[in-house]
Amino acid sequence: MKNILFICFLFIISNSFLNAQELKSPDGNLTLTFKLNNDGTPVYSLNYKKREVIKESKLGFIIKSDIIMNRDFKITETKFQSENSTWKPVLGEQKEIQNQYNELKANLVQEKSKRKISIYFRLFNDGLGFRYEFPVQDNLRHFIIQEETTEFNLTGDHKLFWIPGDYDTNEYSYTTSKISEMQSLVYNATHVPLAAQATIKNLATQTPLMIKTNDGLYINIHEAALKNYPAMCLNVDDKTYSLSSHLVPDAVGNKGYIQTGSFTPWRTIVVSDDAKNILASKMILNLNEPCAFEDTSWIKPVKYIGVWWEYFTGGGSTWAYSDNQDVVIGKTDFAKLKPNNTHGANTKHVKEYIDFASKNGFDAVLVEGWNEGWEDNTAFKKERIYSFTKAYPDFDVKDLSDYASKKNVKIIMHHETTSSTAEYERQLNDALNFMTDNNYNAVKTGYVGPIIPRGEHHDGQQMVNHYTYVAQQAAKHKIMVDSHEAVRPTGLHRTYPNWFAQESARGTEFESMEGIHPDHTTILPFTRLMGGPMDYTPGIFQGDLSFYGDKKNKLSTTLVKQLALYVTMYSPLQMAADLPENYIRFNDAFQFIKDVALDWDETYILEAEPGDYITIARKTKGKQEWFVGGITDENARTAIIDFSFLPAGKSFTAIIYEDGKTADYKTNPQSYNIRKMTVNSKTKLKQKLAASGGVAISIK
Amino acid sequence: MKNILFICFLFIISNSFLNAQELKSPDGNLTLTFKLNNDGTPVYSLNYKKREVIKESKLGFIIKSDIIMNRDFKITETKFQSENSTWKPVLGEQKEIQNQYNELKANLVQEKSKRKISIYFRLFNDGLGFRYEFPVQDNLRHFIIQEETTEFNLTGDHKLFWIPGDYDTNEYSYTTSKISEMQSLVYNATHVPLAAQATIKNLATQTPLMIKTNDGLYINIHEAALKNYPAMCLNVDDKTYSLSSHLVPDAVGNKGYIQTGSFTPWRTIVVSDDAKNILASKMILNLNEPCAFEDTSWIKPVKYIGVWWEYFTGGGSTWAYSDNQDVVIGKTDFAKLKPNNTHGANTKHVKEYIDFASKNGFDAVLVEGWNEGWEDNTAFKKERIYSFTKAYPDFDVKDLSDYASKKNVKIIMHHETTSSTAEYERQLNDALNFMTDNNYNAVKTGYVGPIIPRGEHHDGQQMVNHYTYVAQQAAKHKIMVDSHEAVRPTGLHRTYPNWFAQESARGTEFESMEGIHPDHTTILPFTRLMGGPMDYTPGIFQGDLSFYGDKKNKLSTTLVKQLALYVTMYSPLQMAADLPENYIRFNDAFQFIKDVALDWDETYILEAEPGDYITIARKTKGKQEWFVGGITDENARTAIIDFSFLPAGKSFTAIIYEDGKTADYKTNPQSYNIRKMTVNSKTKLKQKLAASGGVAISIK
Repeated sequence: MKNILFICFLFIISNSFLNAQELKSPDGNLTLTFKLNNDGTPVYSLNYKKREVIKESKLGFIIKSDIIMNRDFKITETKFQSENSTWKPVLGEQKEIQNQYNELKANLVQEKSKRKISIYFRLFNDGLGFRYEFPVQDNLRHFIIQEETTEFNLTGDHKLFWIPGDYDTNEYSYTTSKISEMQSLVYNATHVPLAAQATIKNLATQTPLMIKTNDGLYINIHEAALKNYPAMCLNVDDKTYSLSSHLVPDAVGNKGYIQTGSFTPWRTIVVSDDAKNILASKMILNLNEPCAFEDTSWIKPVKYIGVWWEYFTGGGSTWAYSDNQDVVIGKTDFAKLKPNNTHGANTKHVKEYIDFASKNGFDAVLVEGWNEGWEDNTAFKKERIYSFTKAYPDFDVKDLSDYASKKNVKIIMHHETTSSTAEYERQLNDALNFMTDNNYNAVKTGYVGPIIPRGEHHDGQQMVNHYTYVAQQAAKHKIMVDSHEAVRPTGLHRTYPNWFAQESARGTEFESMEGIHPDHTTILPFTRLMGGPMDYTPGIFQGDLSFYGDKKNKLSTTLVKQLALYVTMYSPLQMAADLPENYIRFNDAFQFIKDVALDWDETYILEAEPGDYITIARKTKGKQEWFVGGITDENARTAIIDFSFLPAGKSFTAIIYEDGKTADYKTNPQSYNIRKMTVNSKTKLKQKLAASGGVAISIK
Repeated sequence: MKNILFICFLFIISNSFLNAQELKSPDGNLTLTFKLNNDGTPVYSLNYKKREVIKESKLGFIIKSDIIMNRDFKITETKFQSENSTWKPVLGEQKEIQNQYNELKANLVQEKSKRKISIYFRLFNDGLGFRYEFPVQDNLRHFIIQEETTEFNLTGDHKLFWIPGDYDTNEYSYTTSKISEMQSLVYNATHVPLAAQATIKNLATQTPLMIKTNDGLYINIHEAALKNYPAMCLNVDDKTYSLSSHLVPDAVGNKGYIQTGSFTPWRTIVVSDDAKNILASKMILNLNEPCAFEDTSWIKPVKYIGVWWEYFTGGGSTWAYSDNQDVVIGKTDFAKLKPNNTHGANTKHVKEYIDFASKNGFDAVLVEGWNEGWEDNTAFKKERIYSFTKAYPDFDVKDLSDYASKKNVKIIMHHETTSSTAEYERQLNDALNFMTDNNYNAVKTGYVGPIIPRGEHHDGQQMVNHYTYVAQQAAKHKIMVDSHEAVRPTGLHRTYPNWFAQESARGTEFESMEGIHPDHTTILPFTRLMGGPMDYTPGIFQGDLSFYGDKKNKLSTTLVKQLALYVTMYSPLQMAADLPENYIRFNDAFQFIKDVALDWDETYILEAEPGDYITIARKTKGKQEWFVGGITDENARTAIIDFSFLPAGKSFTAIIYEDGKTADYKTNPQSYNIRKMTVNSKTKLKQKLAASGGVAISIK
């Protein structure tokens, strides 16, 4: 008996050691170790330059009902392969992206049940991606995920840049704290007014999660290629510093309906000892599938203005055409309603915007409030709030379409769904035909409030599929999509490049409601933007809203920082969000917005520290032209701008938009100075940035 | 103090008495009393020929959260009006329908909150309909119904013909019992294999509910015009004999999302001391809105055969084209799958059906299993099971469309959704275009299994809206709809006459699975059919399935009873459900199916007793031609067929299809006899019906 026990023990030990597989990144800096532990649970760990990044962490699933798929596995096969290629994004931060990794695929089987999964690890120089495959097999065809049990065990009480784990929203302010401090901060972090909110009860956070260790490692955890699967939040154990997958459930508490012959999204860990490399990482894009469309000639960057900010200023402009809330789409004759005379999206006013756009070289004008139904737009219980094919009586679709065409400007369609997605899908085909009939080529979608179908969440599998469906349907009509309040992006804009921007985080509109902390835009590129471009809507010059009326709100940035955001916050869709009148007032500063590019040959991350500052230079796609943006948090600082990105041996004229000497986001935000300077590849500029200030430079 | 109390008491009493309003039916037989009770709760009672039908019963709602709208009301106004008109249904049991009623409308207000509701009572000669209105008002715009508190308080321990209260299905067998016996029978009634089932936990039943009192009153409780509201089940109190509304909840337990400026469906109570009047009642149709379409010329009755019964016989025919269950719509190339060679819907076989239909004067051939996805059709968790625009490789859409046109036969489209309605709505527009492109003018929809969006139910508000949406969209394409497993009908075929039939009850297909009790078809016209036509799929001549293979199932009717169902079960859509080969075998009996009409000038209920027997005569629309059908339950009987419905003074030849002398549904179901007889308006035929037998008569 003793002997048998001893042999068993030996076998288990040896089995577990035999299993251990190591994978190195192409540059050798990252090492992944994968094995089965003594329970037959797949585990992995990750090292960077011999420093532990992720301690031994478990992988697997619990399947409904009572199927355990996170232990009792055996490795049947491991396969290694490497990739080194380049590809060109349709729109992007650089014209060419290198896709270089070493891959380990492990096939696992549970001996008793014969159930199989495979795990793919792809190790890039900038991090690790891994995903699960559910192969077609005899004993498993359809199943429901009760929970994914993937862990990311951190090595200590690191600093996190976090927002609360939530099934419905990412529109929180970031909190910067140690893991051990989160519990004491989470109440304040979550108790903010949001139209849809389903905060996770236990301590949890959203991804992309930015982490900084005490010894200066930067770690970013997110996911890539989120399709037909719920989004992943992260449970936080503030004692063990373990993070673990927390999938967004559906209306009945299930966390994913899977048919075998499919893959999960990739779980991503970007790592570096230099924060700049986090921003430079293209790993998440590399883990997405190539472009799904043959013809992408219709996908273009868009710089736009819009009938939008005037709804937030307190100046009295309204989305609604009348004050009669008792409207019913399909029954109410809107032409018979008494107009409220504050309706923003009227033909005359929109033509003024079109004129301004045309005169100043903008591609498009967004018009919110053009369609029937806004009178009752806060009725979150109502399934059919809007028509997406019927304009208000004072919005002449045909006339405006003709007028915009004549002026070489597009109108951007707006589809606020108020999250009634069943109704939106019913109208979608007609709405898209209406758009093509009237010369629209882009739509801003909105998902304010709780989801209908009831009980579903913004970030659940059902809605993940909805957003993708909308992007695919729009593509059939050659229409680009900018989704607001949707699930945060995971690099799907590589596959569906018409889904070219999203909000999915706290953007400028919150400045008019509760303000935004000055460090917010120094964190977003390390978090939300890791997944994809953000329609942040910068460019507010008149930040003190008391200018318009009774509102007391003030932006928390200088005017120049608003300019710098066009460079630091990558997006092929950029709004000049302020009112035309303010751009006329500050016409010299406005020049930068008119000039700045949207699509790039190269990007150079010059300085970066999450929560503190970011300085980025970019070269315009196809042009000898560069733009630099630098921002800081509430602390003034001196940026060191190294122009070595310029071609050697040539001089260029740089126009520098800088904070005025007495500029300060609280007391003197509109103070700025514009100067010219000759620069070359050897120039190193020491540039002062005011508190929550910035610098914007254009170079030709 | 004493005085004040006395005055208060007097005021309450007088207030309540002052309130009491009486309404009489046009013929004076029915009396409705409406008042507020001492709590300010609206209450009503109903008498028929001085006998109490419904005792004082409460009305009202509980609104989320904590708004009580079933007490503290005051009557602000009552209005009386009368109506007496006629209208013509597009398709129907009679060419003209009289709409005669007296109406009382009561406007109620809760004094503190100023919340208002109105109640409409319409008293017809055949019963009472009442509904609630939520008027537009200042203090209530959108609200969620927690429960409707409508009561139907019965006067005693009546006999009910009931199926269990369920949110997802009406496909139960009927139980006939006293109210006091229900509790002991409900376990067996509910524990039957159904693909989707959500039985109400407390004692409850579905509507239409048929009731017979000890003193011979017949009462039917149902609803009319179910739109944008959940279906109503009935809680049963087996001690007080009180029934009360139990609305079907949504995924999060809510029971209706309401915007003021709207109405509930009508609650209907059909009453008579003669069961025949229950079947003759057109009150539910009268309570529905008139036809919503201007042009109805494309809506026609349909007699059809189909590639259908062969899937149930055990003969081996399959919906699926291959045996590979691991298919994925949009990914799997079905042309590359190995065919199973049992696929029913192949071009050659469908052409045989088309030939048979053409030769025998049928309008159409239903083809189930024509489209991609059936391999995985029991995957109820899967959102996208089928394509509704891609046929299997062996089903040549174009060729069959041409062939059918040439033969003057339509193919009926089949859309089994497996209740994934989100996905169905996504495909619906393309599917309808596909149908019109290929010459289809009718679709059979199916809703097997639990609903996706998850947590929703077949009979909830969301799905009620779905079915109506599909009917409306289909109408835009001039397509008729026959929905299976949908919510039971409530007379909406008056408003949307293209939604011309439904299943929504246990139909013939169950004969091949668990059998059906012989009394079933004598109950259905008193229950399920009160709401609208049923696609029952009669006409099975070869009822013993051991004929085909290993199946032991037997139909519980004689062959002649199958013929009689074409008359006793009204529907403008009638299937000859058996295989062509069986109609060739029994070609003389088949003649009745070929002859029987689908649309009628007049209908005469000759004999009727729920659970026992029904005999009905109908006059063909626009023709001097009559058909009679008589059926009985498990007991043989002699029907007395009074031909006084024939025009006086003329003689006609009747062809009588009768059970053979030794016919019996268990031992000798295929024994029948056909004879001719001369009849006139004075003929009274004593006709023997075998156990679960019938009689079918055609008169020209």
